[in-house]
Amino acid sequence: MNKPLILITNDDGYDALGIRSLTESLRGVGELFIVAPDSPRSAQSSALTVVNPIRAEKMHEESDLTIYKCSGTPVDCVKLALDQLVPRRPALLVSGINHGVNSSSSVIYSGTMGAAMEGALNHIPSIGFSLCCDHNPDADMSIAMPFATEISKKVLERGLPDGICLNVNIPYETAIKGVRIARQAMGDWTEEYICRKDPGGKYYYWLSGNFSCEDRRDNTTDEWALHNGYVSIVPTAVDLTAYGFINELKQWFV
Amino acid sequence: MNKPLILITNDDGYDALGIRSLTESLRGVGELFIVAPDSPRSAQSSALTVVNPIRAEKMHEESDLTIYKCSGTPVDCVKLALDQLVPRRPALLVSGINHGVNSSSSVIYSGTMGAAMEGALNHIPSIGFSLCCDHNPDADMSIAMPFATEISKKVLERGLPDGICLNVNIPYETAIKGVRIARQAMGDWTEEYICRKDPGGKYYYWLSGNFSCEDRRDNTTDEWALHNGYVSIVPTAVDLTAYGFINELKQWFV
Repeated sequence: MNKPLILITNDDGYDALGIRSLTESLRGVGELFIVAPDSPRSAQSSALTVVNPIRAEKMHEESDLTIYKCSGTPVDCVKLALDQLVPRRPALLVSGINHGVNSSSSVIYSGTMGAAMEGALNHIPSIGFSLCCDHNPDADMSIAMPFATEISKKVLERGLPDGICLNVNIPYETAIKGVRIARQAMGDWTEEYICRKDPGGKYYYWLSGNFSCEDRRDNTTDEWALHNGYVSIVPTAVDLTAYGFINELKQWFV
Repeated sequence: MNKPLILITNDDGYDALGIRSLTESLRGVGELFIVAPDSPRSAQSSALTVVNPIRAEKMHEESDLTIYKCSGTPVDCVKLALDQLVPRRPALLVSGINHGVNSSSSVIYSGTMGAAMEGALNHIPSIGFSLCCDHNPDADMSIAMPFATEISKKVLERGLPDGICLNVNIPYETAIKGVRIARQAMGDWTEEYICRKDPGGKYYYWLSGNFSCEDRRDNTTDEWALHNGYVSIVPTAVDLTAYGFINELKQWFV
């Protein structure tokens, strides 16, 4: 009987420390099949490559481990893997371990979570893992690895409801207190651009900013969990319908 | 007293017919301020430009109408506009009119809706408009324009709950039956890639596929509305938390 196939991707690139650590976390848990971007694709959300074709190249193959790099976005990687590359249907998709936090509204921009949501759209139990390590490429991923192993095993065993994936963020500290199931905090980015003049006198703008989050005081949020030493897990839906507003909105058009 | 400022963007580019039609739809409704991509950015979702700086250039200015093109994604356009370009806080953000449908799970990939969600994240009442015209660049946008006017005026007047924007899709037919408030249908893309060999013998892949949607039979969905001659409006949330699964998930970790 086949081992469960685990599709692994990320947005930092197929050779980032985070995806290598995630792969190590899952050794022996299943057959590991990696399809990940050939270079960093941070903040790509669920972007697709539609104007150009994409390419994929097998970089490594051994027993229970295959590695492809792909020229597309994280979601391209998942779509191409499922349609063209995997030997059979994955039992699990994991994305990460991202070098940097993807809590609160960052989930909207995250390529790590774009890939996990793509798995959920394809009815595959899917998880995004992120370590709150400030995009440090040499972060100590051993902090996150035991959680990646444990949570992946639970999802493999129990599955997830159709259309729901998990957004797992791990604080960058050694004394983690445990796991909290949380809701996505609402937060605000302010002062986002640094404006500079090029030698020709024209302006250009670097994205920058400060994140503020009043919601962090609410102990049901992912931000509260992370700032109080807990791993946060937010169940994340691909159905974006705001059901609670449907009835009121209907009254606008009667 | 100032007229309400209306920020307009899209993902087809600042000179696409759709955004010009949306602008015409809103003449006289407020002061119109356009910041839109300098070229098409379809399927960019909520992607951000983080590795490079972006630029913006004023293309046109007259009474009540300013047009900038921006080198970034639709979400970059919104962020840059709000932080650097607009003269005051917009009372409304509208995105579109997209040349092509953004119903069902397409909302996840849509740059049109990425921009609307960015507006919602910034607490601005926001709407994405899409015409189901198969990406036809010369589509008859006059079908969509009266709905853009009416719905924009309603939102200006009544506002929207914080964190919720509207995903409006308009069928490409002249005899539209009316407006339906709907939920996002769940659907599936299958057979997505066309594989070809380049002259060097290496494979490359074009994204392609077929969309199937059993949910279209359910008259509460956007897909049902569009296939039955109605404009669909889905209230769309930027809080992706799957609240209904939180309690069960908590049991996994006790």
